[in-house]
Amino acid sequence: MPRLLTLAGAQTGPIQRADTRAHTLDRLIALLEQAARAGAQLVVFPELPLTTFFPRWFIENTQELDTYFEREMPNANCQKLFDRARELKVGFYLGYAELTPEGQRFNTAITVGPDGQILGKYRKIHLPGSVEPRAGSRFQQLEKRYFEYGDLGFPAFRGAPEWNRPVMGMLICNDRRWPEGWRVYGLQGVELMVMGYNSAAYDPNGGESESAELRTYHSTMAAQSNAYMNATWAVSVAKAGDEDGSGLIGGSCIVSPNGLVVAQAKTLADEVIVAEIDLDDCLQGKEKMFNFAQHRRPQWYGRIVDQVGAEAPE
Amino acid sequence: MPRLLTLAGAQTGPIQRADTRAHTLDRLIALLEQAARAGAQLVVFPELPLTTFFPRWFIENTQELDTYFEREMPNANCQKLFDRARELKVGFYLGYAELTPEGQRFNTAITVGPDGQILGKYRKIHLPGSVEPRAGSRFQQLEKRYFEYGDLGFPAFRGAPEWNRPVMGMLICNDRRWPEGWRVYGLQGVELMVMGYNSAAYDPNGGESESAELRTYHSTMAAQSNAYMNATWAVSVAKAGDEDGSGLIGGSCIVSPNGLVVAQAKTLADEVIVAEIDLDDCLQGKEKMFNFAQHRRPQWYGRIVDQVGAEAPE
Repeated sequence: MPRLLTLAGAQTGPIQRADTRAHTLDRLIALLEQAARAGAQLVVFPELPLTTFFPRWFIENTQELDTYFEREMPNANCQKLFDRARELKVGFYLGYAELTPEGQRFNTAITVGPDGQILGKYRKIHLPGSVEPRAGSRFQQLEKRYFEYGDLGFPAFRGAPEWNRPVMGMLICNDRRWPEGWRVYGLQGVELMVMGYNSAAYDPNGGESESAELRTYHSTMAAQSNAYMNATWAVSVAKAGDEDGSGLIGGSCIVSPNGLVVAQAKTLADEVIVAEIDLDDCLQGKEKMFNFAQHRRPQWYGRIVDQVGAEAPE
Repeated sequence: MPRLLTLAGAQTGPIQRADTRAHTLDRLIALLEQAARAGAQLVVFPELPLTTFFPRWFIENTQELDTYFEREMPNANCQKLFDRARELKVGFYLGYAELTPEGQRFNTAITVGPDGQILGKYRKIHLPGSVEPRAGSRFQQLEKRYFEYGDLGFPAFRGAPEWNRPVMGMLICNDRRWPEGWRVYGLQGVELMVMGYNSAAYDPNGGESESAELRTYHSTMAAQSNAYMNATWAVSVAKAGDEDGSGLIGGSCIVSPNGLVVAQAKTLADEVIVAEIDLDDCLQGKEKMFNFAQHRRPQWYGRIVDQVGAEAPE
């Protein structure tokens, strides 16, 4: 008997700095409702969809910085989304900037069940960018300044009974390019990876750079290949388009355990993609080609944990 | 100043069980000469190109099994290839079944420099298949029976001075689907990965199975994505076509550190693909997106070495 689940990716267009929180939340709710009408039981939103991608600016004023962060989840600013989702019996993956009671800041994502309960929480481990601003740059990438490295590891968890209890994992943006995170989830039997991202479409400072097309290809390939090599379904969802003068790629996609794209966004705007998946499609890979118990040889993988940077032979 | 190197992949069509060793060697030499005429300084041959892919049969007679193995390298059976390569000042990657003086058997590859010296040796770590034959199957996959697991790790080495001394790594066939091996090489700064393969085009026993097209896509994607995620060039070369009644995919390719295919075989026969590459194209990835020293977080990768098989949450 197949283990079916209908999934949606809710790509958003740009969320401008000037947009109100209430306006943005209404957009997310509209996407949720559209996905629910298409039968989706789980909706994946992007990384940091409640605000603009603020790490592109050097913000020295802590009060201003705090406006981008959530002190609890849910909170008054996004309760409406949680309420509407529970009403529709739809779960969701949501990224947000987290400020803990102890004053720690993380780039975080949660997965919420159809009953409104938080099923899993993840804090981004592979933070890109820098701590110090680059002098003379119009735009920064200051995730390493504004966030601490995730401290929860890669904790797989079970999805809701209504979803056939898939083993789920979460990643955020840059994490999706790092096979280590995928493999740690793979070693927990992941069947469904959910991920949001904000990825630059070009170098906003005009340096030598890849095209938006190449960057979208990399984004899709990272999802395809890591889904294949871990025999899991994956949903990878963008905030896209021209956000406050800085371009973001789209390309949100749903990918099978064979590494095939089964749905992909066509625009750089608010757009819902949907697929009905069978979680048991993971079995062929997990039992044959990627049967880890039969084929892995960890005694030769030591450098992966013993070493951070590369060390070339003489 | 660019660090240029002209590479070739020398895909072979099938090597039938009835083919003589001398005939097969002449085919390999012809491919080497064709590659040299096209300017290649390094030619990558497939996995086990000196014979048919014998692990598809259950061979109980040790004397018969031994005919597929090389007791030293080079030896009288393939000296002519080594001599011609040195004459042409062309290096090569060659796979072979190795029988050591101590009686150990490995699925092995070497890289030979333009002066005929062996620069590096690798023994396949990710052996697919099974130890015991599958009852009632027309074809087997008995690599786990005929070979011991590679015992040399993933040892990066420097290529020849004439090649601009790239940091090189070798993998064999199924290894290319395992991101762990790639990453161990990545952590040694690999700039050029060379790999040969024999991959089934379909399930010869007629089970539910992927198409040859999907299998070729997986093979190419494994090279593309792992080259990208480790910011390295890669050459992946097939033995292709209908070999002793069993189909092998082709799709030999040369892939850039951006994960783009720059040359790919079009046939399932003897075919040379060539590309001039700049090793310094690896720098952008190694210094930015995949700057391991800046971005990796090994304290969260422990399961990769602590665990062999998958362990799902309750």
